[in-house]
Amino acid sequence: MRTRAAVAIEAGKPLEIMEVNLEGPKAGEVLVEIKATGLCHTDAFTLSGADPEGMFPAILGHEGAGVVLEVGAGVTSLKPGDHVIPLYTPECRTCDYCLNPKTNLCQSIRETQGAGVMPDGTSRFSMLDGTPILHYMGCSTFANHTVLPEIALAKVRKDAPFDKICYIGCGVTTGIGAVINTAKVEIGSKAIVFGLGGIGLNVLQGLRMAGADQIIGVDLNDSKVEMAKRFGMTDFVNPANVTGDLVAHLVELTGGGADYTFDATGNVGVMRTALEASHKGWGESIIIGVAPAGAEISTRPFQLVTGRSWRGTAFGGARGRTDVPKIVDWYMDGKIEIDPMITHVLSLDDINKGFDLMHAGESIRAVVEF
Amino acid sequence: MRTRAAVAIEAGKPLEIMEVNLEGPKAGEVLVEIKATGLCHTDAFTLSGADPEGMFPAILGHEGAGVVLEVGAGVTSLKPGDHVIPLYTPECRTCDYCLNPKTNLCQSIRETQGAGVMPDGTSRFSMLDGTPILHYMGCSTFANHTVLPEIALAKVRKDAPFDKICYIGCGVTTGIGAVINTAKVEIGSKAIVFGLGGIGLNVLQGLRMAGADQIIGVDLNDSKVEMAKRFGMTDFVNPANVTGDLVAHLVELTGGGADYTFDATGNVGVMRTALEASHKGWGESIIIGVAPAGAEISTRPFQLVTGRSWRGTAFGGARGRTDVPKIVDWYMDGKIEIDPMITHVLSLDDINKGFDLMHAGESIRAVVEF
Ligand SMILES: NC(=O)c1ccc[n+]([C@@H]2O[C@H](COP(=O)([O-])OP(=O)(O)OC[C@H]3O[C@@H](n4cnc5c(N)ncnc54)[C@H](O)[C@@H]3O)[C@@H](O)[C@H]2O)c1
Ligand SMILES: NC(=O)c1ccc[n+]([C@@H]2O[C@H](COP(=O)([O-])OP(=O)(O)OC[C@H]3O[C@@H](n4cnc5c(N)ncnc54)[C@H](O)[C@@H]3O)[C@@H](O)[C@H]2O)c1
Repeated sequence: MRTRAAVAIEAGKPLEIMEVNLEGPKAGEVLVEIKATGLCHTDAFTLSGADPEGMFPAILGHEGAGVVLEVGAGVTSLKPGDHVIPLYTPECRTCDYCLNPKTNLCQSIRETQGAGVMPDGTSRFSMLDGTPILHYMGCSTFANHTVLPEIALAKVRKDAPFDKICYIGCGVTTGIGAVINTAKVEIGSKAIVFGLGGIGLNVLQGLRMAGADQIIGVDLNDSKVEMAKRFGMTDFVNPANVTGDLVAHLVELTGGGADYTFDATGNVGVMRTALEASHKGWGESIIIGVAPAGAEISTRPFQLVTGRSWRGTAFGGARGRTDVPKIVDWYMDGKIEIDPMITHVLSLDDINKGFDLMHAGESIRAVVEF
Repeated sequence: MRTRAAVAIEAGKPLEIMEVNLEGPKAGEVLVEIKATGLCHTDAFTLSGADPEGMFPAILGHEGAGVVLEVGAGVTSLKPGDHVIPLYTPECRTCDYCLNPKTNLCQSIRETQGAGVMPDGTSRFSMLDGTPILHYMGCSTFANHTVLPEIALAKVRKDAPFDKICYIGCGVTTGIGAVINTAKVEIGSKAIVFGLGGIGLNVLQGLRMAGADQIIGVDLNDSKVEMAKRFGMTDFVNPANVTGDLVAHLVELTGGGADYTFDATGNVGVMRTALEASHKGWGESIIIGVAPAGAEISTRPFQLVTGRSWRGTAFGGARGRTDVPKIVDWYMDGKIEIDPMITHVLSLDDINKGFDLMHAGESIRAVVEF
């Protein structure tokens, strides 16, 4: 079949909207009509050429929602008409990782996913002249139709709006999951969130849901305050307005350091501050942000010997097929908010405008509706 | 009263054996006759002058065992004749730290302990000319008699030999505790221990007790192998004999990385290797070693985002008054071994020889018997 897609032809160039060929689903695969997709920093990172693993031409996008149109041989958990959210972290439920309760990093299709192809080693997408186009993060949601492995699709309820729940495919789950799956924050905790963008806001609402007492937001941009308060922030710190040491200021504000800190900036200097602002004896610092290639974190080991832990999270520690449908329920039940974070809705033709808004810091989430 | 002690007069000089004055216990304090004391790297570190917090003159030593001679006003948990092990990490059972199950770092007397004095701000030791001598780590076990706060003494059974259980005051508890309290290693785990000295051997026997399946020891010194095997090591790696990348070698040896890794070297490069040799998704790396002043650990944050945790441990996460008596029982019951690690027994007059043996790498533990 043919479908319309925004294709990343090469690094550093805007996406090109075009018709592409899409082969039908092979065994274990599913054809999905994408109804909406968010634009995430990871897409921009790859498009910019800064991602050392980026490959072109490719159809980017990994934060989508849509409807199953067709299933390949052997697919049992999905049928046409089902509503789904694509998962860049799949959940096969049979690999060593899925069977270990300590991780969500299913490895069953990692190699082919990293190579931009389906598990059989080939791509379903091609240009009209036959040139193959690579898949991206196993999702490629910047296409009106895409093919995914069955294990990379979460089945969700049908009454949930696509243009909101697509955000659960990455940002919402990453932020909330970092709190509830990775940190396992307890009621009454004190927490600091560094970076109040699309991820940080979801960390805030995860903390509110988890019953944290003090939820400090740290951002260089004062314009983030209003929205952050709406999502649960109790105190705001702009490092630019702190005279003296930021760590010392945060330790004082929390009465000894935070029980949990989260980096949602991707800045390795901030990651160090986050660790050191966590409480002696039991503070845990969780890295969510993705640092530039080659950047390193560092600290004195004494920080760890005196009881702080340094950890990280990918996709919020969530097992997609199991956890994503629950988060959709939480949204539908009003336990979490998404609507105010979707600041811009665009057509596929305007997708590059969405990236401009992101780079200008004007959007929290821009969503493309098909 | 007067007692004999090895006094650190100044940094970089040998200890001087001399008679010193010792005041009796004040309220909440206990006079202890030290029967035996181990010599630990931390004592050597302070004596060398490399410890930025070192102060002189002081009576070093923090790995002792002895008998209560006299108790000060208000002391209720100890009486003359009780056998005790001094605790450089006390356990007051009332501070915010003691009441938080996530930490063992009792803070109730931290400031005075760090300043080399008893909780009332004064020292009990002085030279015969009246010059005050500082306490060290709240213990000062290089004296035949010493005074400690009640909360810094673990009461242990009377049939346990002083010249062995003194080692439980630091090395044994640090190594075993890192496994059972900090890492909470599960039966069947794979683990790597970097550094097979006095601490590393105890990590090995902690792992054996915890039921680990694969216990890899890493050391630059082949002469450590025999003893390490005796304490549970299943595989040995000498980095000097590994061609190519050490992390890759260890990941291969463990089939993907270790569930738990432990640094017992104090080398920040080794700490990084330890983290990176832990398993993607769930590996935990525990820093036990104390790095040189100012040294920093570093890694790419990706190591943490893909599921590894970086942690540390002090005194093996043990709450001394509660846990040390249990470890003494384990020794008496034959669950753990200590005797082969006590390689040298010296008199107080020969204490400097003990440090020479340590620096030459000839001893695991040298113990001074009074
Ligand atoms: N681990 C994962 O699974 C995962 C998933 C998605 C995104 N991410 C990463 O999370 C990070 C945040 O993504 P986002 O979409 O929220 O980005 P964003 O640009 O919307 O937000 C980043 C925020 O950080 C603030 N900031 C930047 N530098 C700062 C500093 N030095 N101190 C304080 N605040 C600072 C900015 O003002 C901004 O508000 C990115 O690195 C992204 O790649 C990780
Ligand atoms: N965290 C705590 O509570 C605590 C308590 C006591 C001691 N310590 C620290 O633990 C560390 C170990 O103490 P120890 O008494 O066992 O010392 P040790 O000297 O007896 O043993 C260290 C071992 O590490 C080996 N080693 C050195 N460099 C190495 C390298 N690059 N690669 C592999 N092996 C290497 C040595 O050959 C030696 O066998 C020290 O840093 C000490 O200060 C920490």
